[in-house]
Amino acid sequence: MISLFGDLAQGSGHAIDGPVLSTIMAALDVRPEASRVALHRLRNDGWLQSHKVGRISQHSLTAQGRAESAAASPRIYAPPPDLSEPWQMIVTEENGRQSDMALRASGFIPVTPRAYVGRMDGTAPKDCLALRGDAPPDWLRRAAEPAALQPEYDALLGALSALERTLADTRHMNALDIAVLRCLIVHNWRRLVLKHPPLPGGLIRPDWSGYQCHLLVDALLQRYPRPALQDLAAASAAG
Amino acid sequence: MISLFGDLAQGSGHAIDGPVLSTIMAALDVRPEASRVALHRLRNDGWLQSHKVGRISQHSLTAQGRAESAAASPRIYAPPPDLSEPWQMIVTEENGRQSDMALRASGFIPVTPRAYVGRMDGTAPKDCLALRGDAPPDWLRRAAEPAALQPEYDALLGALSALERTLADTRHMNALDIAVLRCLIVHNWRRLVLKHPPLPGGLIRPDWSGYQCHLLVDALLQRYPRPALQDLAAASAAG
Repeated sequence: MISLFGDLAQGSGHAIDGPVLSTIMAALDVRPEASRVALHRLRNDGWLQSHKVGRISQHSLTAQGRAESAAASPRIYAPPPDLSEPWQMIVTEENGRQSDMALRASGFIPVTPRAYVGRMDGTAPKDCLALRGDAPPDWLRRAAEPAALQPEYDALLGALSALERTLADTRHMNALDIAVLRCLIVHNWRRLVLKHPPLPGGLIRPDWSGYQCHLLVDALLQRYPRPALQDLAAASAAG
Repeated sequence: MISLFGDLAQGSGHAIDGPVLSTIMAALDVRPEASRVALHRLRNDGWLQSHKVGRISQHSLTAQGRAESAAASPRIYAPPPDLSEPWQMIVTEENGRQSDMALRASGFIPVTPRAYVGRMDGTAPKDCLALRGDAPPDWLRRAAEPAALQPEYDALLGALSALERTLADTRHMNALDIAVLRCLIVHNWRRLVLKHPPLPGGLIRPDWSGYQCHLLVDALLQRYPRPALQDLAAASAAG
Protein backbone atom coordinates (compact mmCIF):
# COMPACT_ATOMS: atom_id res chain seq x y z
CA MET A 1 0.00 0.00 0.00
CA ILE A 2 2.94 2.28 0.70
CA SER A 3 4.33 1.43 -2.77
CA LEU A 4 0.96 2.41 -4.20
CA PHE A 5 0.72 5.77 -2.43
CA GLY A 6 4.39 6.42 -3.10
CA ASP A 7 3.90 5.77 -6.80
CA LEU A 8 0.53 7.43 -7.43
CA ALA A 9 0.04 10.09 -4.77
CA GLN A 10 3.40 11.23 -3.41
CA GLY A 11 2.78 14.91 -4.22
CA SER A 12 1.63 17.39 -1.59
CA GLY A 13 -2.19 17.53 -1.59
CA HIS A 14 -2.52 14.26 -3.54
CA ALA A 15 -5.14 11.84 -2.23
CA ILE A 16 -6.66 8.56 -3.38
CA ASP A 17 -10.44 8.12 -3.10
CA GLY A 18 -11.67 5.18 -1.01
CA PRO A 19 -13.41 3.47 -3.97
CA VAL A 20 -10.28 3.79 -6.17
CA LEU A 21 -8.14 2.30 -3.42
CA SER A 22 -10.60 -0.57 -2.93
CA THR A 23 -10.65 -1.33 -6.64
CA ILE A 24 -6.87 -1.39 -6.89
CA MET A 25 -6.45 -3.51 -3.75
CA ALA A 26 -9.06 -5.96 -5.05
CA ALA A 27 -7.21 -6.16 -8.37
CA LEU A 28 -4.05 -6.95 -6.36
CA ASP A 29 -5.96 -9.85 -4.71
CA VAL A 30 -5.99 -8.18 -1.30
CA ARG A 31 -9.23 -9.02 0.55
CA PRO A 32 -11.31 -6.02 1.80
CA GLU A 33 -10.72 -6.90 5.49
CA ALA A 34 -6.95 -7.15 4.98
CA SER A 35 -7.03 -3.86 3.15
CA ARG A 36 -8.97 -2.19 6.00
CA VAL A 37 -6.51 -3.56 8.60
CA ALA A 38 -3.52 -2.29 6.60
CA LEU A 39 -5.09 1.16 6.28
CA HIS A 40 -5.76 1.25 10.01
CA ARG A 41 -2.20 0.25 10.87
CA LEU A 42 -0.61 2.70 8.48
CA ARG A 43 -2.74 5.50 9.99
CA ASN A 44 -1.65 4.47 13.51
CA ASP A 45 1.99 4.37 12.44
CA GLY A 46 1.73 7.90 11.03
CA TRP A 47 2.14 6.99 7.35
CA LEU A 48 -1.39 7.71 6.11
CA GLN A 49 -4.27 10.03 6.94
CA SER A 50 -7.93 9.87 5.89
CA HIS A 51 -10.55 12.59 5.45
CA LYS A 52 -14.26 12.30 4.69
CA VAL A 53 -15.26 14.38 1.68
CA GLY A 54 -19.01 14.09 1.32
CA ARG A 55 -19.84 10.35 1.28
CA ILE A 56 -16.37 9.06 0.40
CA SER A 57 -13.07 8.82 2.27
CA GLN A 58 -9.92 10.30 0.82
CA HIS A 59 -6.61 8.77 1.83
CA SER A 60 -3.24 10.46 1.57
CA LEU A 61 0.33 10.24 2.85
CA THR A 62 1.09 12.26 5.97
CA ALA A 63 3.97 14.75 5.83
CA GLN A 64 6.18 12.09 7.38
CA GLY A 65 4.95 9.42 4.95
CA ARG A 66 5.64 11.76 2.04
CA ALA A 67 9.13 12.47 3.34
CA GLU A 68 9.94 8.77 3.68
CA SER A 69 8.56 8.00 0.22
CA ALA A 70 10.53 10.88 -1.25
CA ALA A 71 13.70 9.56 0.41
CA ALA A 72 13.26 6.11 -1.16
CA SER A 73 12.12 7.32 -4.59
CA PRO A 74 15.51 8.28 -6.06
CA ARG A 75 16.69 4.72 -5.52
CA ILE A 76 13.48 3.03 -6.69
CA TYR A 77 13.04 5.13 -9.82
CA ALA A 78 16.73 5.61 -10.68
CA PRO A 79 17.50 4.88 -14.32
CA PRO A 80 19.77 1.86 -14.85
CA PRO A 81 23.39 2.90 -14.29
CA ASP A 82 25.88 3.46 -17.08
CA LEU A 83 28.09 0.35 -17.09
CA SER A 84 31.17 2.48 -17.63
CA GLU A 85 30.47 4.53 -14.48
CA PRO A 86 33.69 4.87 -12.46
CA TRP A 87 34.01 3.27 -9.03
CA GLN A 88 36.47 3.29 -6.19
CA MET A 89 38.00 0.87 -3.76
CA ILE A 90 38.45 1.84 -0.12
CA VAL A 91 40.96 0.02 2.10
CA THR A 92 40.73 0.48 5.87
CA GLU A 93 43.63 0.50 8.29
CA GLU A 94 42.07 -2.08 10.56
CA ASN A 95 39.30 -4.61 10.63
CA GLY A 96 37.28 -2.33 12.89
CA ARG A 97 33.56 -2.30 13.53
CA GLN A 98 33.44 1.48 13.51
CA SER A 99 35.00 2.00 10.10
CA ASP A 100 32.91 -0.92 8.80
CA MET A 101 29.71 0.76 9.96
CA ALA A 102 30.76 4.17 8.62
CA LEU A 103 31.62 2.72 5.22
CA ARG A 104 28.43 0.69 4.95
CA ALA A 105 26.42 3.76 5.96
CA SER A 106 28.07 5.63 3.07
CA GLY A 107 26.95 2.91 0.65
CA PHE A 108 30.25 1.05 0.37
CA ILE A 109 30.16 -2.70 -0.18
CA PRO A 110 32.66 -5.00 1.60
CA VAL A 111 34.51 -7.33 -0.79
CA THR A 112 37.51 -8.55 1.24
CA PRO A 113 38.18 -8.26 5.00
CA ARG A 114 39.39 -4.65 4.73
CA ALA A 115 38.45 -3.57 1.21
CA TYR A 116 35.20 -1.98 0.08
CA VAL A 117 33.91 -0.83 -3.31
CA GLY A 118 31.47 1.92 -4.11
CA ARG A 119 30.59 4.88 -6.24
CA MET A 120 32.94 7.81 -6.68
CA ASP A 121 30.57 10.12 -4.80
CA GLY A 122 30.79 8.09 -1.58
CA THR A 123 32.96 9.63 1.13
CA ALA A 124 35.23 7.38 3.13
CA PRO A 125 36.60 8.07 6.64
CA LYS A 126 39.67 10.22 6.10
CA ASP A 127 42.26 7.69 7.19
CA CYS A 128 41.26 5.16 4.55
CA LEU A 129 43.09 4.52 1.31
CA ALA A 130 40.86 5.42 -1.67
CA LEU A 131 41.80 4.11 -5.11
CA ARG A 132 40.00 4.84 -8.34
CA GLY A 133 38.75 1.62 -9.89
CA ASP A 134 39.80 0.22 -13.20
CA ALA A 135 38.68 -2.73 -15.36
CA PRO A 136 37.36 -5.09 -12.65
CA PRO A 137 37.88 -8.86 -12.85
CA ASP A 138 34.72 -10.96 -12.92
CA TRP A 139 35.13 -12.21 -9.32
CA LEU A 140 35.12 -8.63 -8.04
CA ARG A 141 31.88 -7.84 -9.86
CA ARG A 142 30.33 -10.94 -8.31
CA ALA A 143 31.72 -10.11 -4.87
CA ALA A 144 29.96 -6.73 -5.02
CA GLU A 145 26.57 -8.27 -5.81
CA PRO A 146 24.15 -8.91 -2.92
CA ALA A 147 24.52 -12.70 -2.95
CA ALA A 148 21.70 -13.31 -0.46
CA LEU A 149 19.21 -11.63 -2.81
CA GLN A 150 20.30 -13.62 -5.85
CA PRO A 151 17.37 -16.14 -5.79
CA GLU A 152 14.88 -13.31 -5.36
CA TYR A 153 16.34 -11.25 -8.19
CA ASP A 154 16.30 -14.35 -10.40
CA ALA A 155 12.63 -14.92 -9.52
CA LEU A 156 11.74 -11.27 -10.13
CA LEU A 157 13.50 -11.35 -13.48
CA GLY A 158 11.44 -14.41 -14.46
CA ALA A 159 8.21 -12.69 -13.39
CA LEU A 160 9.03 -9.41 -15.14
CA SER A 161 10.00 -11.18 -18.34
CA ALA A 162 6.72 -13.14 -18.33
CA LEU A 163 4.83 -9.92 -17.57
CA GLU A 164 6.47 -8.16 -20.49
CA ARG A 165 5.50 -10.97 -22.90
CA THR A 166 1.88 -10.88 -21.62
CA LEU A 167 1.69 -7.10 -21.95
CA ALA A 168 2.83 -7.32 -25.58
CA ASP A 169 -0.49 -9.13 -26.33
CA THR A 170 -2.65 -6.75 -24.27
CA ARG A 171 -4.56 -4.27 -26.39
CA HIS A 172 -6.07 -1.78 -23.99
CA MET A 173 -5.34 -0.83 -20.39
CA ASN A 174 -7.24 1.87 -18.55
CA ALA A 175 -5.81 4.09 -15.78
CA LEU A 176 -6.73 1.54 -13.07
CA ASP A 177 -5.07 -1.35 -14.92
CA ILE A 178 -1.92 0.72 -15.22
CA ALA A 179 -2.01 1.74 -11.54
CA VAL A 180 -2.25 -1.93 -10.57
CA LEU A 181 0.54 -2.90 -12.97
CA ARG A 182 2.85 -0.15 -11.68
CA CYS A 183 2.05 -1.00 -8.09
CA LEU A 184 3.01 -4.65 -8.67
CA ILE A 185 6.26 -3.71 -10.36
CA VAL A 186 7.29 -1.03 -7.86
CA HIS A 187 6.35 -3.12 -4.83
CA ASN A 188 8.43 -6.14 -5.88
CA TRP A 189 11.33 -4.04 -7.09
CA ARG A 190 11.58 -1.83 -4.01
CA ARG A 191 11.46 -4.87 -1.72
CA LEU A 192 14.84 -5.95 -3.20
CA VAL A 193 16.54 -2.77 -4.32
CA LEU A 194 16.22 -1.04 -0.93
CA LYS A 195 17.91 -3.98 0.79
CA HIS A 196 21.40 -3.28 -0.56
CA PRO A 197 23.52 -0.31 -1.55
CA PRO A 198 23.57 0.66 -5.23
CA LEU A 199 26.37 -0.95 -7.23
CA PRO A 200 28.54 1.46 -9.20
CA GLY A 201 27.84 0.88 -12.91
CA GLY A 202 31.44 0.03 -13.69
CA LEU A 203 31.25 -2.99 -11.38
CA ILE A 204 27.98 -4.42 -12.68
CA ARG A 205 27.98 -7.71 -14.61
CA PRO A 206 25.70 -7.01 -17.58
CA ASP A 207 24.01 -10.38 -17.12
CA TRP A 208 23.45 -10.00 -13.36
CA SER A 209 19.72 -10.57 -12.79
CA GLY A 210 19.55 -7.51 -10.52
CA TYR A 211 20.68 -5.35 -13.43
CA GLN A 212 18.43 -7.12 -15.91
CA CYS A 213 15.50 -6.48 -13.52
CA HIS A 214 16.48 -2.83 -13.36
CA LEU A 215 16.37 -2.55 -17.17
CA LEU A 216 12.92 -4.16 -17.31
CA VAL A 217 11.49 -2.16 -14.39
CA ASP A 218 12.70 1.05 -15.99
CA ALA A 219 11.36 0.13 -19.44
CA LEU A 220 7.94 -0.92 -18.10
CA LEU A 221 7.47 2.14 -15.86
CA GLN A 222 8.33 4.35 -18.82
CA ARG A 223 6.02 2.47 -21.17
CA TYR A 224 3.14 2.71 -18.67
CA PRO A 225 3.43 6.18 -17.15
CA ARG A 226 1.86 7.07 -13.83
CA PRO A 227 -1.89 7.78 -14.39
CA ALA A 228 -3.36 11.07 -13.14
CA LEU A 229 -5.50 10.80 -10.00
CA GLN A 230 -8.60 12.16 -11.77
CA ASP A 231 -8.24 9.51 -14.49
CA LEU A 232 -8.16 6.87 -11.76
CA ALA A 233 -11.32 8.28 -10.17
CA ALA A 234 -13.06 8.40 -13.56
CA ALA A 235 -12.06 4.80 -14.44
CA SER A 236 -13.20 3.61 -11.01
CA ALA A 237 -16.56 5.37 -11.38
CA ALA A 238 -17.00 3.95 -14.90
CA GLY A 239 -16.22 0.39 -13.67
CA MET B 1 84.17 -11.48 1.39
CA ILE B 2 81.54 -11.83 -1.33
CA SER B 3 80.55 -8.17 -0.76
CA LEU B 4 84.21 -7.29 -1.22
CA PHE B 5 84.69 -9.19 -4.48
CA GLY B 6 81.28 -8.01 -5.71
CA ASP B 7 82.22 -4.41 -5.02
CA LEU B 8 85.85 -4.35 -6.15
CA ALA B 9 86.31 -7.13 -8.67
CA GLN B 10 83.03 -8.02 -10.30
CA GLY B 11 84.27 -7.47 -13.85
CA SER B 12 85.39 -10.33 -16.06
CA GLY B 13 89.16 -10.88 -15.61
CA HIS B 14 89.28 -8.88 -12.36
CA ALA B 15 91.30 -10.48 -9.57
CA ILE B 16 92.48 -9.45 -6.12
CA ASP B 17 96.03 -10.26 -5.09
CA GLY B 18 96.48 -12.38 -1.97
CA PRO B 19 98.39 -9.65 -0.04
CA VAL B 20 95.70 -7.05 -0.87
CA LEU B 21 92.97 -9.41 0.31
CA SER B 22 94.88 -10.13 3.53
CA THR B 23 95.37 -6.44 4.23
CA ILE B 24 91.69 -5.64 3.70
CA MET B 25 90.49 -8.59 5.79
CA ALA B 26 92.88 -7.58 8.58
CA ALA B 27 91.52 -4.03 8.45
CA LEU B 28 88.03 -5.53 8.79
CA ASP B 29 89.20 -7.33 11.95
CA VAL B 30 89.00 -10.77 10.36
CA ARG B 31 91.76 -13.03 11.68
CA PRO B 32 94.05 -14.70 9.06
CA GLU B 33 92.79 -18.23 9.89
CA ALA B 34 89.15 -17.15 9.56
CA SER B 35 89.99 -15.48 6.30
CA ARG B 36 91.69 -18.64 4.99
CA VAL B 37 88.72 -20.81 6.00
CA ALA B 38 86.28 -18.44 4.26
CA LEU B 39 88.37 -18.47 1.11
CA HIS B 40 88.48 -22.27 1.16
CA ARG B 41 84.72 -22.58 1.62
CA LEU B 42 83.89 -20.07 -1.08
CA ARG B 43 86.16 -21.97 -3.50
CA ASN B 44 84.42 -25.25 -2.60
CA ASP B 45 81.00 -23.64 -3.09
CA GLY B 46 81.99 -22.42 -6.54
CA TRP B 47 82.02 -18.69 -5.75
CA LEU B 48 85.74 -18.02 -5.94
CA GLN B 49 88.79 -19.36 -7.78
CA SER B 50 92.50 -18.86 -7.07
CA HIS B 51 95.53 -18.92 -9.35
CA LYS B 52 99.23 -18.70 -8.53
CA VAL B 53 100.97 -15.93 -10.46
CA GLY B 54 104.64 -16.15 -9.60
CA ARG B 55 104.89 -16.10 -5.81
CA ILE B 56 101.45 -14.63 -5.06
CA SER B 57 97.91 -15.99 -5.32
CA GLN B 58 95.26 -14.12 -7.28
CA HIS B 59 91.66 -14.61 -6.25
CA SER B 60 88.64 -13.91 -8.45
CA LEU B 61 84.94 -14.63 -8.76
CA THR B 62 84.03 -17.70 -10.84
CA ALA B 63 81.59 -17.22 -13.74
CA GLN B 64 78.80 -18.33 -11.40
CA GLY B 65 79.98 -16.02 -8.63
CA ARG B 66 80.09 -13.12 -11.08
CA ALA B 67 76.58 -13.94 -12.31
CA GLU B 68 75.20 -13.99 -8.76
CA SER B 69 76.94 -10.76 -7.85
CA ALA B 70 75.65 -9.13 -11.01
CA ALA B 71 72.11 -10.26 -10.17
CA ALA B 72 72.25 -8.64 -6.72
CA SER B 73 74.07 -5.46 -7.78
CA PRO B 74 71.12 -3.54 -9.28
CA ARG B 75 69.36 -3.78 -5.93
CA ILE B 76 72.43 -3.04 -3.78
CA TYR B 77 73.64 -0.08 -5.85
CA ALA B 78 70.23 1.30 -6.89
CA PRO B 79 69.93 5.04 -6.36
CA PRO B 80 67.32 6.02 -3.72
CA PRO B 81 63.85 5.94 -5.30
CA ASP B 82 61.92 9.03 -6.28
CA LEU B 83 59.30 9.51 -3.53
CA SER B 84 56.68 10.39 -6.13
CA GLU B 85 57.19 7.10 -7.98
CA PRO B 86 53.79 5.55 -8.77
CA TRP B 87 52.72 2.28 -7.20
CA GLN B 88 49.88 -0.17 -7.53
CA MET B 89 47.66 -2.24 -5.33
CA ILE B 90 46.81 -5.81 -6.30
CA VAL B 91 43.76 -7.56 -4.85
CA THR B 92 43.46 -11.34 -5.20
CA GLU B 93 40.26 -13.30 -5.62
CA GLU B 94 41.05 -15.66 -2.79
CA ASN B 95 43.37 -16.05 0.14
CA GLY B 96 45.35 -18.65 -1.78
CA ARG B 97 48.89 -19.86 -1.23
CA GLN B 98 49.57 -20.01 -4.94
CA SER B 99 48.64 -16.42 -5.74
CA ASP B 100 50.45 -15.34 -2.57
CA MET B 101 53.65 -17.03 -3.72
CA ALA B 102 53.33 -15.69 -7.27
CA LEU B 103 52.80 -12.14 -6.01
CA ARG B 104 55.68 -12.26 -3.54
CA ALA B 105 57.92 -13.69 -6.26
CA SER B 106 57.04 -10.66 -8.41
CA GLY B 107 58.09 -8.33 -5.59
CA PHE B 108 54.64 -7.48 -4.25
CA ILE B 109 54.26 -6.80 -0.54
CA PRO B 110 51.21 -8.10 1.36
CA VAL B 111 49.41 -5.37 3.35
CA THR B 112 45.99 -6.89 4.13
CA PRO B 113 44.82 -10.51 3.81
CA ARG B 114 44.19 -10.21 0.06
CA ALA B 115 45.81 -6.92 -0.95
CA TYR B 116 49.40 -6.34 -2.03
CA VAL B 117 51.33 -3.23 -3.02
CA GLY B 118 54.24 -2.91 -5.40
CA ARG B 119 55.86 -1.05 -8.22
CA MET B 120 54.05 -0.37 -11.46
CA ASP B 121 56.42 -2.68 -13.37
CA GLY B 122 55.43 -5.74 -11.32
CA THR B 123 53.13 -8.17 -13.13
CA ALA B 124 50.27 -9.74 -11.22
CA PRO B 125 48.51 -13.03 -12.05
CA LYS B 126 45.92 -12.13 -14.65
CA ASP B 127 42.84 -12.72 -12.52
CA CYS B 128 43.85 -10.13 -9.93
CA LEU B 129 42.46 -6.65 -9.62
CA ALA B 130 45.21 -4.07 -10.24
CA LEU B 131 44.62 -0.48 -9.13
CA ARG B 132 46.97 2.41 -9.65
CA GLY B 133 47.95 3.89 -6.30
CA ASP B 134 47.22 7.38 -5.12
CA ALA B 135 48.21 9.46 -2.08
CA PRO B 136 48.75 6.68 0.49
CA PRO B 137 47.70 7.11 4.14
CA ASP B 138 50.49 6.80 6.68
CA TRP B 139 49.38 3.37 7.93
CA LEU B 140 49.73 1.94 4.42
CA ARG B 141 53.29 3.23 4.10
CA ARG B 142 54.10 1.60 7.41
CA ALA B 143 52.35 -1.63 6.44
CA ALA B 144 54.58 -1.88 3.36
CA GLU B 145 57.79 -1.53 5.39
CA PRO B 146 59.63 -4.72 6.44
CA ALA B 147 58.70 -4.48 10.13
CA ALA B 148 61.01 -7.34 11.20
CA LEU B 149 64.04 -5.45 9.88
CA GLN B 150 63.15 -2.21 11.64
CA PRO B 151 65.60 -2.60 14.58
CA GLU B 152 68.40 -3.50 12.15
CA TYR B 153 67.70 -0.57 9.86
CA ASP B 154 67.61 1.72 12.90
CA ALA B 155 70.97 0.33 14.03
CA LEU B 156 72.50 0.66 10.56
CA LEU B 157 71.28 4.24 10.33
CA GLY B 158 72.97 5.02 13.65
CA ALA B 159 76.22 3.42 12.46
CA LEU B 160 76.17 5.15 9.06
CA SER B 161 75.46 8.54 10.63
CA ALA B 162 78.36 8.10 13.06
CA LEU B 163 80.58 6.95 10.18
CA GLU B 164 79.68 10.01 8.14
CA ARG B 165 80.58 12.33 11.04
CA THR B 166 83.93 10.54 11.54
CA LEU B 167 84.74 10.70 7.83
CA ALA B 168 84.18 14.46 7.83
CA ASP B 169 87.24 14.77 10.12
CA THR B 170 89.38 12.31 8.14
CA ARG B 171 91.96 14.01 5.97
CA HIS B 172 93.44 11.34 3.77
CA MET B 173 92.30 7.88 2.75
CA ASN B 174 94.27 5.69 0.39
CA ALA B 175 92.81 3.08 -1.98
CA LEU B 176 92.92 0.38 0.69
CA ASP B 177 91.13 2.54 3.28
CA ILE B 178 88.43 3.24 0.74
CA ALA B 179 88.10 -0.44 -0.19
CA VAL B 180 87.63 -1.30 3.48
CA LEU B 181 85.12 1.50 3.97
CA ARG B 182 83.06 0.46 0.91
CA CYS B 183 83.18 -3.17 1.94
CA LEU B 184 81.82 -2.31 5.38
CA ILE B 185 79.03 -0.20 3.93
CA VAL B 186 78.05 -2.61 1.15
CA HIS B 187 78.18 -5.66 3.40
CA ASN B 188 75.87 -4.21 6.06
CA TRP B 189 73.51 -2.67 3.53
CA ARG B 190 73.15 -5.77 1.35
CA ARG B 191 72.43 -7.92 4.41
CA LEU B 192 69.22 -5.92 4.93
CA VAL B 193 68.19 -4.70 1.51
CA LEU B 194 68.28 -8.15 -0.10
CA LYS B 195 65.91 -9.52 2.57
CA HIS B 196 62.80 -7.68 1.34
CA PRO B 197 61.31 -6.51 -1.95
CA PRO B 198 61.98 -2.91 -2.96
CA LEU B 199 59.29 -0.46 -1.83
CA PRO B 200 57.83 1.73 -4.57
CA GLY B 201 58.99 5.30 -3.95
CA GLY B 202 55.44 6.63 -3.68
CA LEU B 203 54.86 4.44 -0.62
CA ILE B 204 58.04 5.31 1.27
CA ARG B 205 57.84 7.34 4.47
CA PRO B 206 60.61 9.93 4.09
CA ASP B 207 61.69 9.34 7.69
CA TRP B 208 61.71 5.53 7.47
CA SER B 209 65.19 4.44 8.59
CA GLY B 210 65.46 2.05 5.63
CA TYR B 211 65.12 5.02 3.28
CA GLN B 212 67.46 7.20 5.34
CA CYS B 213 70.04 4.38 5.20
CA HIS B 214 69.60 4.24 1.44
CA LEU B 215 70.33 7.98 1.13
CA LEU B 216 73.50 7.67 3.24
CA VAL B 217 74.75 4.49 1.53
CA ASP B 218 74.29 6.13 -1.85
CA ALA B 219 75.99 9.38 -0.78
CA LEU B 220 78.97 7.60 0.80
CA LEU B 221 79.54 5.20 -2.11
CA GLN B 222 79.51 8.17 -4.48
CA ARG B 223 81.83 10.22 -2.29
CA TYR B 224 84.31 7.31 -2.04
CA PRO B 225 84.32 5.72 -5.49
CA ARG B 226 85.49 2.18 -6.08
CA PRO B 227 89.34 2.16 -6.22
CA ALA B 228 91.05 0.58 -9.22
CA LEU B 229 92.65 -2.83 -8.56
CA GLN B 230 96.15 -1.58 -9.48
CA ASP B 231 95.84 1.26 -6.94
CA LEU B 232 94.95 -1.33 -4.31
CA ALA B 233 97.99 -3.42 -5.18
CA ALA B 234 100.20 -0.33 -5.08
CA ALA B 235 98.82 0.82 -1.69
CA SER B 236 99.25 -2.70 -0.30
CA ALA B 237 102.87 -2.88 -1.55
CA ALA B 238 103.61 0.59 -0.12
CA GLY B 239 102.10 -0.39 3.26
